[in-house]
Amino acid sequence: MQKTPQHEPEFIRKVPDGDSMERDVCATCGFVDYKNPKIVVGSVVTWGEKILLCKRAIEPRIGYWTLPAGYLELHETAEDGAAREAREEACADIEIERLLAVYSIPRISQVQLMFRAKLKHPDIATGPESEAVGLYDWADIPWADLAFPSVGWALRHYFETKDRSDFAPFSNPVDGL
Amino acid sequence: MQKTPQHEPEFIRKVPDGDSMERDVCATCGFVDYKNPKIVVGSVVTWGEKILLCKRAIEPRIGYWTLPAGYLELHETAEDGAAREAREEACADIEIERLLAVYSIPRISQVQLMFRAKLKHPDIATGPESEAVGLYDWADIPWADLAFPSVGWALRHYFETKDRSDFAPFSNPVDGL
Ligand SMILES: [Zn+2]
Ligand SMILES: [Zn+2]
Repeated sequence: MQKTPQHEPEFIRKVPDGDSMERDVCATCGFVDYKNPKIVVGSVVTWGEKILLCKRAIEPRIGYWTLPAGYLELHETAEDGAAREAREEACADIEIERLLAVYSIPRISQVQLMFRAKLKHPDIATGPESEAVGLYDWADIPWADLAFPSVGWALRHYFETKDRSDFAPFSNPVDGL
Repeated sequence: MQKTPQHEPEFIRKVPDGDSMERDVCATCGFVDYKNPKIVVGSVVTWGEKILLCKRAIEPRIGYWTLPAGYLELHETAEDGAAREAREEACADIEIERLLAVYSIPRISQVQLMFRAKLKHPDIATGPESEAVGLYDWADIPWADLAFPSVGWALRHYFETKDRSDFAPFSNPVDGL
């Protein structure tokens, strides 16, 4: 992995060797300023028929409800990242079942990998990024107060397939981009 | 998205606001040097029973066989990225069917989204990154000359499920990390 330049970079636009697109390349040291899409990992976590939701204590969308999810870190598998996010945001100990959906949010260059998971035990608690956490019946989900569109997509996709194990993962709903 | 600093950065280790891990943060301008895992998108592309393979014209693993795959670009959906890679590497016009597998390669901080796809027509040709492209019967796949372990995983996972449409996407084989 390239090191961020330790000097004032002098960027020029050029196609790096072996690449096919113009990038910002430092004329002094050759550093290529690749801007990559980011990977978000998260999960729809259940305990029996109830679904784990977290009320955001941080911006963006502070005070709105979300699923445990966040950026994948370096040197982490997608599954480990989703489990870490559940631990950080809801002190939840989860077991990943399978991939539920892959949502692409090209406007913000984000790909979201959403898993289906189960709580290993029902003990949950607020982490530093949550002002509340709860286990919700389907009928009680606060649809009007969800933090992001993809939270609603993942919940609906979960519900549609909750009694099945074999299905193709969902991508964005047709009306979703 | 943050702009790369236009001056000599003075990095200090600290936990940025709203974050939970130490990062390199520029003491002068606040730039956070996030290092993110990268997303590779690719596909197992078929024409009838034959599978599209590309012989690499570039490092790493020049001269070895691979599936059309590469880094997802900014502002691209995962599916569009996989189709672009097939176009760039094999001049192939493909239709994505579904997600076949998500492989995590934590050692190099990579997540690979591998799709199952069909050629729309059998016209293929070498692109700038390929020294040869071909449509291979299963029995003729050059197993000993595949470029990367995950190429073999995707081929085997494809073959295992080629007559099914409903299945959970694969992740790394248990012996694969
Ligand atoms: Zn430089
Ligand atoms: Zn700075």
